[in-house]
Amino acid sequence: MVIEKVNYEQRLRRLNKIIVNFENFKSENILIFKDENIYYLTGFYGKNSGSSLLITNRRGYLFVNFIYYEEAKNSVCNQNIEIILLDNDKNEEIIDMLNQKAIKDILIEASSISCSNFLKLRVLLEKEKIKFGFIDYPLSELRIVKDEYELKIIRDCCRITEKSFKDILKYNYKEITSKSELELAHELEGYLIKNDAYGKSFDFIIANNENSSKPHYCASNTKIRNGVLLMDFGAYYKNYCSDITRTIFIGDILEHINFKKVFEIYEIVKEAQFLAESQCRPGMISSELDNAARSFIAKNGYGESFGHSLGHGVGLEVHEPPFINSKSNFVLREGMVITLEPGIYIEGLGGVRIEDMVEITKDGHKNFYNLKKEKIFIVN
Amino acid sequence: MVIEKVNYEQRLRRLNKIIVNFENFKSENILIFKDENIYYLTGFYGKNSGSSLLITNRRGYLFVNFIYYEEAKNSVCNQNIEIILLDNDKNEEIIDMLNQKAIKDILIEASSISCSNFLKLRVLLEKEKIKFGFIDYPLSELRIVKDEYELKIIRDCCRITEKSFKDILKYNYKEITSKSELELAHELEGYLIKNDAYGKSFDFIIANNENSSKPHYCASNTKIRNGVLLMDFGAYYKNYCSDITRTIFIGDILEHINFKKVFEIYEIVKEAQFLAESQCRPGMISSELDNAARSFIAKNGYGESFGHSLGHGVGLEVHEPPFINSKSNFVLREGMVITLEPGIYIEGLGGVRIEDMVEITKDGHKNFYNLKKEKIFIVN
Repeated sequence: MVIEKVNYEQRLRRLNKIIVNFENFKSENILIFKDENIYYLTGFYGKNSGSSLLITNRRGYLFVNFIYYEEAKNSVCNQNIEIILLDNDKNEEIIDMLNQKAIKDILIEASSISCSNFLKLRVLLEKEKIKFGFIDYPLSELRIVKDEYELKIIRDCCRITEKSFKDILKYNYKEITSKSELELAHELEGYLIKNDAYGKSFDFIIANNENSSKPHYCASNTKIRNGVLLMDFGAYYKNYCSDITRTIFIGDILEHINFKKVFEIYEIVKEAQFLAESQCRPGMISSELDNAARSFIAKNGYGESFGHSLGHGVGLEVHEPPFINSKSNFVLREGMVITLEPGIYIEGLGGVRIEDMVEITKDGHKNFYNLKKEKIFIVN
Repeated sequence: MVIEKVNYEQRLRRLNKIIVNFENFKSENILIFKDENIYYLTGFYGKNSGSSLLITNRRGYLFVNFIYYEEAKNSVCNQNIEIILLDNDKNEEIIDMLNQKAIKDILIEASSISCSNFLKLRVLLEKEKIKFGFIDYPLSELRIVKDEYELKIIRDCCRITEKSFKDILKYNYKEITSKSELELAHELEGYLIKNDAYGKSFDFIIANNENSSKPHYCASNTKIRNGVLLMDFGAYYKNYCSDITRTIFIGDILEHINFKKVFEIYEIVKEAQFLAESQCRPGMISSELDNAARSFIAKNGYGESFGHSLGHGVGLEVHEPPFINSKSNFVLREGMVITLEPGIYIEGLGGVRIEDMVEITKDGHKNFYNLKKEKIFIVN
């Protein structure tokens, strides 16, 4: 059953349950600053808008400035959320509202307010004798399991992503080597838009040969040459993100300085990714999942060359909980959406990364992509 | 005289001067988290990399994780900056280094660390009896005046921006109305890349008719129709940003619901922008500059419809100090780069904004763009 409308009331109830049971500081009141959390709870999404949401006993007060006021009025449809146009210092207006509602204790979303903003707010809170506590990770629980409405959007977003990757694969050798990394990145985004995305979910990593050994390299204006081409990209669709990485091969492979090694790495990464995917199911611990890929890569002698985490959650943010790394202890649950993206990087030679997105299902998992992982060549 | 190389030593000396004279807490030691400040001082730019830079008596320790390590090694050329690969908790590694260097007092760049990260760091600092203070606005002084090397890049970046805008203006009526806002935004970025930019400096605002009354609207997949087309965009070039807005007119203007009003607004905004620009000179106070445009708009009856600030500094960030608004008190100085962007927005009808970037010179100012501000029409 696909729920077509977002149930904001239910989300506010779930938030309330989290905060009244939060072990460090129980309160029915919370100040939220993260744009994605505000969107999740109200329907208003002002990226980097500096908006704040006060929730008190399941009623919300959304503080926005002039620039976002019309947008907020258009997008908030829950009558329990009141929109307040800021025309003064934001912290002071928040404190005024706390006083008006006789609020004497409040949780602060500490991961999404800067230290300097917090210091200013603290002065006012202390002056008014309002007790405060901090909430951080527990609030990520709010969005960690996706509902059917969200899963449908994410599926569509991944479908767009896969289609656009296939559009790029239609390029012949001459076409692809006539482009710079930057131009290819831009054309890839063009395909995403053509295929109904709103744009890209992050700055793409389009990395040719030695550039590909830097896991978060972006794209430069150098022309694509024979060798390795790592493409890490994603779509942005109805405010949700996708993420995918494929590493393909361009031109006469014998021209490459050490192609045997790159192929060896490719197969190890592919197998590591497969091993991790096959472990995806409810109840699995994130660090154990990470280890499924990491131990295989280490056993093959490349442990030092896989220096990042195995994956992360994807949703309204392209990187969000659960984080899948060697130290994290998230327990996988039905409805979580994560990436699996092992990689091996050799400085001066290049890197290989293969990344899929999977949904944790009742019995196991489902890959959002329908793409094979055999090596792909675009040859002359 | 154009300095072709960055003098990192000089920048570190300037930083040192700021922090040892900082009134709230004097120290020779500082922890910096903002990626742009780290780049400015070291040459390493890891956007959202979570890197930290410890400066102690003009020597630097750059903490980066695996993902950015190769990039950091390649980009830091100052021998006084040591690169440290993180393989443990970042805060703990920073504290270890502070202990190793027997540092007992430190400034923290409070605007660029989250409250929750600061809370973790504070526990460790207090445990080691290391005194700490906060620095925020004074550090923005570091980059507020651009040197000749930076100005040259910004000029090139604006030249690319202007050229790309002219490329868009070559579209005829049929071409432009066959595109959605999103497609036009994407093509505009394509021109920037063709003209040597590395990409865009922010998500473009391409807003047609009623969409243009939301100052920070993005772009949607609706086709461009007759009426107002507001385009706020910018290039990203050699790590520097540009910013520009033009509002143009598409098709038969008589079709528009209330075109006389839009034209009236256009002329008021144009004059307000001119009035502000003519006040740009060293010694001018930012709030007075803002008032030059704002009072004119108010006098013409649209004071309530210009709800954002007049402008902002541009450099490594597209929005950075000095901020030009009714409350700020920056004093303009030679070498500052600011935008001037008054606007009037009427809900349901549309908005007009005209934005230039100017450099404050010894005697006055210089506009980075060579574009007229008369109304531009793309008609059938």
